[in-house]
Amino acid sequence: MAASVFKDGDSRKWPFADPATFLDARFIENGLQPEVLEALDVALIGVPMDLGVTNRAGARLGPRAVRAIERIGPYEHVLRVAPMGGLKVADVGDVPMRSRFGLAECHADIEACYRMIAATGVIPLSVGGDHSISGAILKGLAASQPVGMIHIDAHCDTAGPYEGSKFHHGAPFREAVLAGVLDPKRTIQIGIRGGGEYLWEFSFASGMTVIHAEEVAEMGLKAVITKALEVVGTGPTYLSFDVDSLDPAFAPGTGTPEVGGLQPREALTLLRGFKGINLVGGDVVEIAPQYDNTTNTAQIAAQVLFELLCLATFSPAVRTKLT
Amino acid sequence: MAASVFKDGDSRKWPFADPATFLDARFIENGLQPEVLEALDVALIGVPMDLGVTNRAGARLGPRAVRAIERIGPYEHVLRVAPMGGLKVADVGDVPMRSRFGLAECHADIEACYRMIAATGVIPLSVGGDHSISGAILKGLAASQPVGMIHIDAHCDTAGPYEGSKFHHGAPFREAVLAGVLDPKRTIQIGIRGGGEYLWEFSFASGMTVIHAEEVAEMGLKAVITKALEVVGTGPTYLSFDVDSLDPAFAPGTGTPEVGGLQPREALTLLRGFKGINLVGGDVVEIAPQYDNTTNTAQIAAQVLFELLCLATFSPAVRTKLT
Amino acid sequence: MAASVFKDGDSRKWPFADPATFLDARFIENGLQPEVLEALDVALIGVPMDLGVTNRAGARLGPRAVRAIERIGPYEHVLRVAPMGGLKVADVGDVPMRSRFGLAECHADIEACYRMIAATGVIPLSVGGDHSISGAILKGLAASQPVGMIHIDAHCDTAGPYEGSKFHHGAPFREAVLAGVLDPKRTIQIGIRGGGEYLWEFSFASGMTVIHAEEVAEMGLKAVITKALEVVGTGPTYLSFDVDSLDPAFAPGTGTPEVGGLQPREALTLLRGFKGINLVGGDVVEIAPQYDNTTNTAQIAAQVLFELLCLATFSPAVRTKLT
Amino acid sequence: MAASVFKDGDSRKWPFADPATFLDARFIENGLQPEVLEALDVALIGVPMDLGVTNRAGARLGPRAVRAIERIGPYEHVLRVAPMGGLKVADVGDVPMRSRFGLAECHADIEACYRMIAATGVIPLSVGGDHSISGAILKGLAASQPVGMIHIDAHCDTAGPYEGSKFHHGAPFREAVLAGVLDPKRTIQIGIRGGGEYLWEFSFASGMTVIHAEEVAEMGLKAVITKALEVVGTGPTYLSFDVDSLDPAFAPGTGTPEVGGLQPREALTLLRGFKGINLVGGDVVEIAPQYDNTTNTAQIAAQVLFELLCLATFSPAVRTKLT
Amino acid sequence: MAASVFKDGDSRKWPFADPATFLDARFIENGLQPEVLEALDVALIGVPMDLGVTNRAGARLGPRAVRAIERIGPYEHVLRVAPMGGLKVADVGDVPMRSRFGLAECHADIEACYRMIAATGVIPLSVGGDHSISGAILKGLAASQPVGMIHIDAHCDTAGPYEGSKFHHGAPFREAVLAGVLDPKRTIQIGIRGGGEYLWEFSFASGMTVIHAEEVAEMGLKAVITKALEVVGTGPTYLSFDVDSLDPAFAPGTGTPEVGGLQPREALTLLRGFKGINLVGGDVVEIAPQYDNTTNTAQIAAQVLFELLCLATFSPAVRTKLT
Amino acid sequence: MAASVFKDGDSRKWPFADPATFLDARFIENGLQPEVLEALDVALIGVPMDLGVTNRAGARLGPRAVRAIERIGPYEHVLRVAPMGGLKVADVGDVPMRSRFGLAECHADIEACYRMIAATGVIPLSVGGDHSISGAILKGLAASQPVGMIHIDAHCDTAGPYEGSKFHHGAPFREAVLAGVLDPKRTIQIGIRGGGEYLWEFSFASGMTVIHAEEVAEMGLKAVITKALEVVGTGPTYLSFDVDSLDPAFAPGTGTPEVGGLQPREALTLLRGFKGINLVGGDVVEIAPQYDNTTNTAQIAAQVLFELLCLATFSPAVRTKLT
Repeated sequence: MAASVFKDGDSRKWPFADPATFLDARFIENGLQPEVLEALDVALIGVPMDLGVTNRAGARLGPRAVRAIERIGPYEHVLRVAPMGGLKVADVGDVPMRSRFGLAECHADIEACYRMIAATGVIPLSVGGDHSISGAILKGLAASQPVGMIHIDAHCDTAGPYEGSKFHHGAPFREAVLAGVLDPKRTIQIGIRGGGEYLWEFSFASGMTVIHAEEVAEMGLKAVITKALEVVGTGPTYLSFDVDSLDPAFAPGTGTPEVGGLQPREALTLLRGFKGINLVGGDVVEIAPQYDNTTNTAQIAAQVLFELLCLATFSPAVRTKLT
Repeated sequence: MAASVFKDGDSRKWPFADPATFLDARFIENGLQPEVLEALDVALIGVPMDLGVTNRAGARLGPRAVRAIERIGPYEHVLRVAPMGGLKVADVGDVPMRSRFGLAECHADIEACYRMIAATGVIPLSVGGDHSISGAILKGLAASQPVGMIHIDAHCDTAGPYEGSKFHHGAPFREAVLAGVLDPKRTIQIGIRGGGEYLWEFSFASGMTVIHAEEVAEMGLKAVITKALEVVGTGPTYLSFDVDSLDPAFAPGTGTPEVGGLQPREALTLLRGFKGINLVGGDVVEIAPQYDNTTNTAQIAAQVLFELLCLATFSPAVRTKLT
Repeated sequence: MAASVFKDGDSRKWPFADPATFLDARFIENGLQPEVLEALDVALIGVPMDLGVTNRAGARLGPRAVRAIERIGPYEHVLRVAPMGGLKVADVGDVPMRSRFGLAECHADIEACYRMIAATGVIPLSVGGDHSISGAILKGLAASQPVGMIHIDAHCDTAGPYEGSKFHHGAPFREAVLAGVLDPKRTIQIGIRGGGEYLWEFSFASGMTVIHAEEVAEMGLKAVITKALEVVGTGPTYLSFDVDSLDPAFAPGTGTPEVGGLQPREALTLLRGFKGINLVGGDVVEIAPQYDNTTNTAQIAAQVLFELLCLATFSPAVRTKLT
Repeated sequence: MAASVFKDGDSRKWPFADPATFLDARFIENGLQPEVLEALDVALIGVPMDLGVTNRAGARLGPRAVRAIERIGPYEHVLRVAPMGGLKVADVGDVPMRSRFGLAECHADIEACYRMIAATGVIPLSVGGDHSISGAILKGLAASQPVGMIHIDAHCDTAGPYEGSKFHHGAPFREAVLAGVLDPKRTIQIGIRGGGEYLWEFSFASGMTVIHAEEVAEMGLKAVITKALEVVGTGPTYLSFDVDSLDPAFAPGTGTPEVGGLQPREALTLLRGFKGINLVGGDVVEIAPQYDNTTNTAQIAAQVLFELLCLATFSPAVRTKLT
Repeated sequence: MAASVFKDGDSRKWPFADPATFLDARFIENGLQPEVLEALDVALIGVPMDLGVTNRAGARLGPRAVRAIERIGPYEHVLRVAPMGGLKVADVGDVPMRSRFGLAECHADIEACYRMIAATGVIPLSVGGDHSISGAILKGLAASQPVGMIHIDAHCDTAGPYEGSKFHHGAPFREAVLAGVLDPKRTIQIGIRGGGEYLWEFSFASGMTVIHAEEVAEMGLKAVITKALEVVGTGPTYLSFDVDSLDPAFAPGTGTPEVGGLQPREALTLLRGFKGINLVGGDVVEIAPQYDNTTNTAQIAAQVLFELLCLATFSPAVRTKLT
Repeated sequence: MAASVFKDGDSRKWPFADPATFLDARFIENGLQPEVLEALDVALIGVPMDLGVTNRAGARLGPRAVRAIERIGPYEHVLRVAPMGGLKVADVGDVPMRSRFGLAECHADIEACYRMIAATGVIPLSVGGDHSISGAILKGLAASQPVGMIHIDAHCDTAGPYEGSKFHHGAPFREAVLAGVLDPKRTIQIGIRGGGEYLWEFSFASGMTVIHAEEVAEMGLKAVITKALEVVGTGPTYLSFDVDSLDPAFAPGTGTPEVGGLQPREALTLLRGFKGINLVGGDVVEIAPQYDNTTNTAQIAAQVLFELLCLATFSPAVRTKLT
């Protein structure tokens, strides 16, 4: 099994020792440089920006909260993989952004950063931050070729501009489609619910596949997995996980909670079911630790990040540049 | 869809602006007056009284906690309705009660208030407060004609007097049957569990249908819905939702939590399944925010209140007086 | 005493009944209109905006948190006044702002609103929101005549632009001086501390009086009061209270806590000592309820708001327009 | 020092072992019996009743919360006493009350219980419960002879009836005076503040000495102690400590918090200063653990209970019946 | 005194009265004595020791937290039993251990205590403490004859020594097998998951039956129950329940939470399904109340303890010594 | 990449970006090496060990909690110093310890580590961990020459062995004196209180100066500072700050809270008063974040760490080896 990696249980660092990093990976200061990234298979990146929220702020502290979780991994017993053993992985720090007071400027900085990342061939796994960052990430990462997407969320996030801005966290995937970086036909949205359905006509009009939360229960997880694999096919695929896809009991630490969501056990089964997709990047977003006094939200977010890392192990995209 | 109501997303108030009201409805000061209520289809009412609790107090703060929740609705995507668009709805404030030190006096005030309400033809949707209020509400609301009831709760609440009082929160539905305002044959109790079963013989003796929490899992939600619709039929029906019907992980903020309860997703499916019942009133009770540091309990309570409002939209009782 | 106002203790509303408003004052929907304000002596106003924060967001929920506090007043036993009895006061709701995604736009909306308010002669007492709102308030309120200010805070908030913006919460009083609406010679800043002193040279250069937190302890409260009264004199004076002036043990619910601050008892003594100043407006800001699980921060904020209301009672500015 | 009592540090029970009792004293089941009490010097008693509150309920859980505190004592280094070594002390359980739904009935049960206690000569130290219990305690304990009182509180608690009841927690000491069990001339109230002063004219009219919170700071603690000793003299004296006398930062867990209160260090100095008074009983009340997530309120309450026990050591009333 | 007040069926103690004990059972001070235990059918015992944890400490406070839960039972409506009515049950306090600073010494003390217990024929139901206590319990309890075990947990706890110690909480069941007190062929482990699978080869090698968390969902509860009953058969059986078997949303208060666990409703169904096993002892462990601000973890732990008590009622082992 | 984006004075990192380190200092992985330390003036070190606690565990998480605090410094306005500007400072990670299950082994590892550190001439500032670590630190750091000490704490920590161990957190300074590394005549203990005085006879017998918490208030801070400077003189001095020296309202997150402690403002004044002492090392200990839901304890701990760093700036010991 993973015996060669962990043959001496004693040699592992105490789980609560030293500064906290994503999944206890090595931290590389100023790691968002081409020469650093080219030497990695997967980069774990924080995007601590929440100026796009429409309701409760706080997700700017999401990356630190996810780093603070100890004891995720090292082994995934269903997928039978210990990803840190097979991949070169590091926490490369957070995307530098020029202003805490300008949403559009932050998006520009994120986009530029991921454009640089795309050129290195590393698979970026990002932790938000509000969901608006995913739009900017896709614009940078998929500039040369549109990607498909598995999107797990309570909200479709395909609304139009609010209050004069198209950069808010309810719109990233409309923007990504309009920018030509996201292929709506290869996009599936899972876990959708809440009172905003009337805002997401674009999802339906553009050809995305939408599976509501109650439909997940009705269809069963296997059918959802099958549908998702069918939708995204073998092309390059991004996976975006918003923690508000989960029921607020499991993920209270988020800005726009919606009653009636998925359970973590369901989410894990879905993610494991996506083994083999051509994963080119992924994110977990909307962790607002101010509302997460048990740290459960950060725990599930860290676990999802770990599952993304496991999926990366099996992805044909490892060390393959998007072109 | 609901496009005509919400065609300009920008024009909605920020979710956290202004004093908080139930479901962000308009507040009418001193709204519990016949002339006000006669102009409404549905009245949202607080009943901040918890003198009937047997264990942990605190539900007196339930109405304020439910009002504090932002972002419920405006659209219900399964029922395909935006209830605020079709109904005249307002938050008419809280039932005035004469004494914080007298349970029986509070019940008398509640009963009198709902008797007045019944005469106006408005559908009252109430937020408690402990469950003892439901007995007083029924005595006022159904004085002219007994109603049926869908009762979702961990406890049957059909016990006899405790410690010299019949007004406590474990007895309202026995009292209502004995007062002739509740038809036990048209009453179904869903989610029952906990160590008090021996106190609820009246439920069985009077002919109520009792479905325990574990039976909900065994029967499946569709069978429960079918049974409930069969029990209540087409007659006037009240719906009472105690948040302790849910597992404490989903609704910690309550006075008598019981391990092993329903999930919010199940509760929502049940409520949606009751579309078309002849709803003449409803309540959500036992929200004790002192124990609800995530606000999850208030969130689900507000969502249940919204679902009740949606059910009201489809109820033949809209603008029909109970006679 | 206040006997005529409260002769029947029984007739007061239960402290937790009905929607919560500032100091339990009457709520006037859409109250930010000249005709409404002209009929009032004091308007209680929310400004739920926190796009100007440099660290932890959340103060957008401050107004709702302060409204949720029950049981402040009605009598101030040191000042011997029951202000609601002598003044016409209402909660007029929150300043409407056009975009949750634009700090500069919010400032413009706030400024315009307070310009309108200034013309009505009402004394506005505002609840933030981050401290950047005070700059916009002053630009609107004091457009016709610069005011003096008593400023109680951990930070001078007279820094220059950060990251391309001059609207952040560390700069409002520099901006106000530069705009000609704040007279630095008539400005005193009390409670200052923390690691940012090097950013606030403008305070000293412009002639403001700065009293650090440790100097408050050394000088004694009486000397601080005397100094403050001397600085502001009899001219129109604004009072701005940032809850981070208090030690974090007393006010944890704020975005930029600083160890070593004032105690509430000291703050109350200071505020009472300012009886008789020519108060033309005031605010209490930076309440971030996400970090305030005891509600203590909101409690002290509501109490400060009440003290401001008492000071208004004694202000020569009541019903006097700033011209 | 206390060496003889604690000569083997190892032999003490772990602080968190076994069921929790007041000050880790021995628990005597059904201990509220004359034969048990006559064998004790001091009885520690719970009174878990909060039906007299006017605002937030919850103090019914106060006794359990105070019991849960570990590590108070065994030595008081300022008073130089280890009270458990010199006195026979036990936790005798809680006062049985006949109904959770009847405030007046509870008062009758408390009064009867303390009348029995008075006859045994034990000194009762009680933990509430809301402050209304103190009125009933005094009626029972001092039935044969009025007592003096040192009363530390934010509120005078000498108001008249509210909403038809004279048993609420704002009135016990008016009731006690009217019942002839409390001598107002030998009563001092310390720490008074908040917006209810107009309700407490009875304190002044009856001749009680009232020292407001801000006067404590102005006079200094020594002067307050001197005044208190002068007021109560050598006659039998009760000491009632309401945790809301403290600033809410130190005691958030209470139903009617008032900003600007005492500090624990001040409270301890006061209590130590009362060494030698003729203490015949005492209580600490209004601990509402729902609002006490740090347990700080219960900690200070347990410490106050310990200080009362130390004062009992020095009281001439030990083993002396009130006659 | 109490008896005359409460003569009728309402005579149950208020749920929050008196010192808290396990399941509100009678407390017997120094109850861990042969003569006491021989007079009981079931002994409820605390083991407040957490020196064996590998991550977050705190379970030493587990027994007190479980005692603090009110309102569990008295009736189990699925098993149709009120166990306190049929069995002699008491809370006999906590196992005395000689040192808070020595894990091995604590294990020796626990083992010796349970060896004494085994000789009395009482069924011990224990509350931890970390899971390492179960190894010591088994060594004492099953010294004369190996037992089978139903083990519900996220972790197999069959790892080898860590950092020089074999007494940590990841190893008790390997130790128990090696000591000849646990029969691996009669052992089933249910709910297993997390990143440590590579540490538990001993479970598989020794012949234990392992059912992962996701397999519980796939197999269905009935199949799991059938399998467990088949594995343990009719021989003496121990039941060990680690609260981290549950998803962290249901049991946040634990030291090594693992996302994706069981639901309480599932756990209750499993436990009820084990009716009739030859239960000779059981425990519920790893309750860390520091992380349990809703008390939900302690609630479910107390409910599990109650279910174990119900299972004891049906066990052929009642009053039968292990020989 | 970052450099081009942030060319101006605004170029400080966002306070919540990247992995958290002590005082936002640079992190050096595996920094506890002679060659690394010799290049530094001050090393910030974590010691995440809490096996020495007698009551509530949890301080093992103290270093991570202190690292998580943003926004301390960079300037100290009373001491007029920006220490990061003048000193070479880094977070060098946590002391590696061989076993989570062995207190004595951890002490040996700590002692060895600080012996190595002493040889490099760097000033170590450490974050605990429970207070027992200070004994081991002193044994390593002062092996060649005894040091004096300013010790701010609720407890003297000079007790003898408990339960067979001399390594517990109540004994480090007795051990240090007995080991010849601490000069009791040059030791002052400030803030002492609580019920354990009888355990600390060694402090008095060995000639330490003890100033109780209430004596701090009586003497005044200036007198305390003068006394401390007189006691420690110009010789090498260690400063140990236990957060339980503060009142629990200011520092709830600790294992053995004691009511009636210092205020942060007092603590800061004391620390600033020690400017110029010959500081050779220091620590801040007993931060247990499980009990610190406001993070206030970690905030004050981080501030104390910063003050220690400022004191280091003025210490003659900078770059001077203890010999």
